[in-house]
Amino acid sequence: MLSTNGGLTIYKKQIQFGTHQYGFISGEGILGQVAEWLNPLELEVDTYMIISDSGVPHPIIAQTVAAFEKAGTTYLLTFPPGEKNKNLITVESLCRKALALGADRRTAIVALGGGVSGNVAGMVAGMLCRGLPLIHIPTTLIAASDSVLSLKQGVNLDQGKNILGFFYTPRVVCVELSFLHSLPAREIRSGLCELVKNLLAILPEQMDTYRKLLRPSNQYRMEELQQFIEFCIEAKMTVMQDDPYEKNHAVVLEYGHTIGHAVELLGNGDYSHGESIAFGMLCMSTVSKWLGLLTEKEVDLHYELLELVGANVIPPSLWIPNIERYMLRDNKKGYRRYVPGKTGLVLLNGLGRINQEAGSFITYVDDALVRESIRYHTESKIHIKG
Amino acid sequence: MLSTNGGLTIYKKQIQFGTHQYGFISGEGILGQVAEWLNPLELEVDTYMIISDSGVPHPIIAQTVAAFEKAGTTYLLTFPPGEKNKNLITVESLCRKALALGADRRTAIVALGGGVSGNVAGMVAGMLCRGLPLIHIPTTLIAASDSVLSLKQGVNLDQGKNILGFFYTPRVVCVELSFLHSLPAREIRSGLCELVKNLLAILPEQMDTYRKLLRPSNQYRMEELQQFIEFCIEAKMTVMQDDPYEKNHAVVLEYGHTIGHAVELLGNGDYSHGESIAFGMLCMSTVSKWLGLLTEKEVDLHYELLELVGANVIPPSLWIPNIERYMLRDNKKGYRRYVPGKTGLVLLNGLGRINQEAGSFITYVDDALVRESIRYHTESKIHIKG
Repeated sequence: MLSTNGGLTIYKKQIQFGTHQYGFISGEGILGQVAEWLNPLELEVDTYMIISDSGVPHPIIAQTVAAFEKAGTTYLLTFPPGEKNKNLITVESLCRKALALGADRRTAIVALGGGVSGNVAGMVAGMLCRGLPLIHIPTTLIAASDSVLSLKQGVNLDQGKNILGFFYTPRVVCVELSFLHSLPAREIRSGLCELVKNLLAILPEQMDTYRKLLRPSNQYRMEELQQFIEFCIEAKMTVMQDDPYEKNHAVVLEYGHTIGHAVELLGNGDYSHGESIAFGMLCMSTVSKWLGLLTEKEVDLHYELLELVGANVIPPSLWIPNIERYMLRDNKKGYRRYVPGKTGLVLLNGLGRINQEAGSFITYVDDALVRESIRYHTESKIHIKG
Repeated sequence: MLSTNGGLTIYKKQIQFGTHQYGFISGEGILGQVAEWLNPLELEVDTYMIISDSGVPHPIIAQTVAAFEKAGTTYLLTFPPGEKNKNLITVESLCRKALALGADRRTAIVALGGGVSGNVAGMVAGMLCRGLPLIHIPTTLIAASDSVLSLKQGVNLDQGKNILGFFYTPRVVCVELSFLHSLPAREIRSGLCELVKNLLAILPEQMDTYRKLLRPSNQYRMEELQQFIEFCIEAKMTVMQDDPYEKNHAVVLEYGHTIGHAVELLGNGDYSHGESIAFGMLCMSTVSKWLGLLTEKEVDLHYELLELVGANVIPPSLWIPNIERYMLRDNKKGYRRYVPGKTGLVLLNGLGRINQEAGSFITYVDDALVRESIRYHTESKIHIKG
């Protein structure tokens, strides 16, 4: 739903995943208009604790604090940035700080930042007093169009990414478009890789629209960013309205993620989440082709779209046995019984169609074939773009 | 539902809290009959990880391991006993161990022990892979009749008992009555204090039955223990079927707990959970009488019933300002807005009736009156029984 308010264009949507509902609002200058989007929730809180990693730019933090100060007592709690701090120790330490500041059932938790902030703050909100209201203020495109569109909260252990977590429903997401507009091109690219995944795996009928819109510069107008987010909401709701816990057909959202997460973990910051899963999707498309599930043309579409977002990046320096070892930590493990010599993967058998095998949405693939797909891509013509 | 199986009397019940359902089975020798109660769940797991504190007697651990070995690969993971180890560090360490042993989505977590084991294992089950099936094997009366009849999982911080946690539904509870039958009298008493709470606060119409049954020796036959558990299930379902997250009228289950938890924490093991909340209930009954909410006779019933279970114990050595300081950590804080000089409490305005004030199930009481009730009871004639 679009509305305008003093010249502003505001987009509002009710997110529905199964029986779970929450509001989504975005626009330029929307964050400061707290009365517009916060008051209708009737949260019965008087205190807001903003949780942010210290990598979030100061002006964004300052604007957010100022916005919430209009609504109640506001505190800022920060933690060091990076995937390596997305762990239970950070969560416990933030819980202690929040309690020391007087957090109780009249406190709301505000997650400010990218996916790491969102997940860490989501864990804090879900656990303090067994659940305080959670408000998301995503500051990256990938957070706004992917991680806040999920009930999943999680932190890492060395034994796996997001291996510890739970499901917890936010109360509202507020996307301040001016924050996204100032992002570096590489951050935008990371978000658009998930958009490409949604095009390939969920809503291919909208391919032509985005073929015209996407460009490798990753410079976009705010209205275009808005359109990307709306498309991702549509894609997520398509698969999650009947599968809010992503245990059945919604595992299609994990397309490219088994190899992607391994690359992201191994790269230790060298490859963004989007770039990592872009690589994972290329491998999966090749595997699917070898298995006769995708045509050459459908595989080419993977390349074409990822090239359009400048994300046909390849991690040539990663040692394949390391990728394979990290893949063993995939948190989808166990959806199907372990079979020696096989890896369980999310594959497509056509654009927008997850492959099913024996009633499962996970397909067994010979380890050797998976390895071959990684080798094929790491040794191929495509190289990292700056 | 009662059934017999080779001379055994088995009690089966479907627990229903809101939309959450799980099975409850109890009987003598039932644990070993895995096929009877585990197979119908169709859990799709092949591995069982039993989590137990190392204070659980070895024969009980051995019997439980043997029982689950009939169903699949079984591992035992232990942690040091006691409330002080019910923390997030223990949970994380158990998660690491479980993952090192290969835990994945085809693993079930078995909570073996009292309330601490149940809560710690419940947190592990709820967080690993965002939720593995949870099976409860309570080995204390209070666990069997109270903590497993709840969706609440939680661990402590210095800043409060159960202050970190979430809601997670077990798949089944199996009570092996022979485990409970061998418990020391003091353990039985602890469980019966919660039963007394249920009589006073939820189902007073069954008072006469239990007046005849309860005895200060705390020695009971298995059929009597069985009856106690059935009564507690009835009480819990009465208040939780419409309030599974215990946010509205089901906070009556917290009767006596604001002061009780403070005493339990301060006592550091000197007072059991039941004894601590028994003290809390006596204080609450006195406060209620002073406020004109309960009659002298209704207060006397509190004494009479707690005397019958030998739990009219008083912590005379605790310094009242300390109790008050610990009460500030009550995790019900914030159900109502903080009002200086007042404590929010669960009070009764008659047996089986929670008091409401301004639409809330929490009643504001002057701090001075609460302090007076503690002083009245710590300086009164009642003393600790051995």
